[in-house]
Amino acid sequence: MKTIKIGIIGLGTVGTGVVKILQQNQDLIQNRLGAIIEIAKVADLDFTYDRGISLNHLPLTQDALEVINDPQIPIVVELMGGEEPAASFLLKAIQNGKHVVTANKALLSTRGEEIFKSAFERQVDIGFEGSVCGGIPIIRAIKEGLSANKITTIFGILNGTANYILTRMTEEGKGFQAVLEEAKKLGYAEADPSLDVHGTDTTHKLSILLSLVYGKKISPEDIYTEGITRIHPLDIEFAVQLGYRIKLLAIFKDENGEIEARVHPTLIPADSLLSHVKGVNNAVFIYGDAVGSTLFYGQGAGMMPTGSAVVSDLIEISRNILKGNCGTMVPFFPENKNTITVKAKNQFFSRYYLRFSAQDRPGVLSQISGILGKFNISIASVIQRGQQEDGAVPIFMLIHKAREEYVAKALQEIDALPVVLDQTMLIRIEDHLID
Amino acid sequence: MKTIKIGIIGLGTVGTGVVKILQQNQDLIQNRLGAIIEIAKVADLDFTYDRGISLNHLPLTQDALEVINDPQIPIVVELMGGEEPAASFLLKAIQNGKHVVTANKALLSTRGEEIFKSAFERQVDIGFEGSVCGGIPIIRAIKEGLSANKITTIFGILNGTANYILTRMTEEGKGFQAVLEEAKKLGYAEADPSLDVHGTDTTHKLSILLSLVYGKKISPEDIYTEGITRIHPLDIEFAVQLGYRIKLLAIFKDENGEIEARVHPTLIPADSLLSHVKGVNNAVFIYGDAVGSTLFYGQGAGMMPTGSAVVSDLIEISRNILKGNCGTMVPFFPENKNTITVKAKNQFFSRYYLRFSAQDRPGVLSQISGILGKFNISIASVIQRGQQEDGAVPIFMLIHKAREEYVAKALQEIDALPVVLDQTMLIRIEDHLID
Repeated sequence: MKTIKIGIIGLGTVGTGVVKILQQNQDLIQNRLGAIIEIAKVADLDFTYDRGISLNHLPLTQDALEVINDPQIPIVVELMGGEEPAASFLLKAIQNGKHVVTANKALLSTRGEEIFKSAFERQVDIGFEGSVCGGIPIIRAIKEGLSANKITTIFGILNGTANYILTRMTEEGKGFQAVLEEAKKLGYAEADPSLDVHGTDTTHKLSILLSLVYGKKISPEDIYTEGITRIHPLDIEFAVQLGYRIKLLAIFKDENGEIEARVHPTLIPADSLLSHVKGVNNAVFIYGDAVGSTLFYGQGAGMMPTGSAVVSDLIEISRNILKGNCGTMVPFFPENKNTITVKAKNQFFSRYYLRFSAQDRPGVLSQISGILGKFNISIASVIQRGQQEDGAVPIFMLIHKAREEYVAKALQEIDALPVVLDQTMLIRIEDHLID
Repeated sequence: MKTIKIGIIGLGTVGTGVVKILQQNQDLIQNRLGAIIEIAKVADLDFTYDRGISLNHLPLTQDALEVINDPQIPIVVELMGGEEPAASFLLKAIQNGKHVVTANKALLSTRGEEIFKSAFERQVDIGFEGSVCGGIPIIRAIKEGLSANKITTIFGILNGTANYILTRMTEEGKGFQAVLEEAKKLGYAEADPSLDVHGTDTTHKLSILLSLVYGKKISPEDIYTEGITRIHPLDIEFAVQLGYRIKLLAIFKDENGEIEARVHPTLIPADSLLSHVKGVNNAVFIYGDAVGSTLFYGQGAGMMPTGSAVVSDLIEISRNILKGNCGTMVPFFPENKNTITVKAKNQFFSRYYLRFSAQDRPGVLSQISGILGKFNISIASVIQRGQQEDGAVPIFMLIHKAREEYVAKALQEIDALPVVLDQTMLIRIEDHLID
């Protein structure tokens, strides 16, 4: 039986998962592939800490170049994360004619174009299923399974940490900071969770999915991004009362070339499928013009789920090598010359949930609603609560569809009122998830 | 730009969908593929009825052999359905060295082994994404996306008609027959719905999925199959009260080689994701040892969703042709020599819901529970209702985990009691859907 040698750069969580899977499912993979995948070299700077696997039979090195320059190794797996030196290693491997596999979403999101182009020119394969939604085969779904479709809508819960925090806030009524601290202790949030809770990680992933939809780079800078750090238990409680749940949602819509791409906390109907995606799970809703509504669900991160995606790429590339047919896994279509323009935030058109923090005084609601009226923003419903511990009176409001530009202007005026104590909380609503 | 010619046999619902998609997304597909897919011949016996598309520019023929024997056509799409002559046409096309695409689940389920072997020997590609769950790319998910995993559990809602009927029975409290008649009028059930409501269609699809899991034929005859025709509104009502929903579920479990594969109505927890799959939608829950829990959701049938799957196969095969690399899409792994034995019904081990139809007389419950006790079957809960219109008193019972053999024996004795008026309704329960 033939053997395909692979080299791994970065033996962290995912790298360890890859080793585990290749070991525990060795027979099964051999059977499916008709060949053996052999770990020929593993590079990391630190092999001293316990990873829960035996390193005894692994050929270890502290020099990534030993992997990249090894003529025996046709596939290099980059799992070190970060931008540099990961990018240089990947590009060098590609220049050396290696096929590459990576789960590095931050890197692909910012420098994917360069990396994909380089792989395309060198006619090597690049696998990156692990870069979005861990083990959910969402990259393949867009590239292959739904390839007959014009994809016009995506709603994605793409970050497990943020979804875990929102789920526990919803189920337990706790505050953001308290749940975040517990999530850190339980290993569901990293020591520095900023990429997760500020939405950046979700934006990276959405930009990768959109590159596949359009066959060209969609920059994360063009995607409006807002995190979940300002979500208050009152917002969650009120959303639930209104029949909604709050999710950190990646949103993409293409209505006849009018393109929206944004990431922010969103009120979605409680009876939608996405509302039932709980804890660290991810889900991607995709609407295609032929297939209609589809949803892909699973664990979006972690040693074994992301490892599963990386190994599926290894199997696919190995099949291609055995068939002598590589260079088919590049996602960019050089033919696509269209310019893709994403709508600016001011142009969003949405329903909104607003929570005002007001003083407990007569006439407050009249002042607020007066300003909204001035900007032609009409109120769908309003509820005022009793005074909170901090002395403020929360006013909850749903407003009808409005252009974000006018809403922002109205809120600027409202927040400048002496009777308004804190920045007004604004959460966009998606009522029609078409699932 | 290169052109790939295809021939279509069968211009029914799905065939029409394929033509529509190839026309409406022509530019997009051309862009993604870097080549043109041209419909070079369409065979059907009847071109007289209105399909909602113009047949003017389509090269029509009434002779399928004109497609199969055309040396200009490298890909033949079989969409006529049924076993014969579909099987002969497919096999002849393969012998002629054509790549083939089919959505014929009944055919693949019963004669797939022969067809796949023939494609493997002739080294042609065979695409069959449309055969299971319409546009949901579930074939690719198992073959490629989850290829690193040992798949140990599948729960599937694989038949849209059955799911539509159960959904409406649940939401409206109507009887099976009434909803079925309405479903027929609305086009959600065929004139002869027996394959759908008796579970046969679900079994065909499960057998195809399991062929992919094991890399060898799993015969539909080995899959215990029970339909939804006996489900009574009382069963649905009681299930809802207990926190369950009733779904026609395809169930697969592999616990260390102990394999269960069965299709039957099932009580599943109301808060599980599968409970929220409504109407004609399909969903497949898959558990893999590395990836954990995943779910794939979408429309399981229909002109455009199934057309989407067929066209995705056409694009993949066209890519392979352009690369000069065909023969990779065969799902069977010739290396797999293991014998797969599926558990017989008697060996099922499950919790059960039972509904007895008893006379309104003292001592009935004691007789029933006496027989259950004799077979060591213990009761979890029991509710007796008032007399129904037909004079019978329904007794609802949940029993703890038991071996089906003993449950069947007990029910045989119970149903023979003079005080029991009708065959007892038994529905298996799956409490732990691990989503």
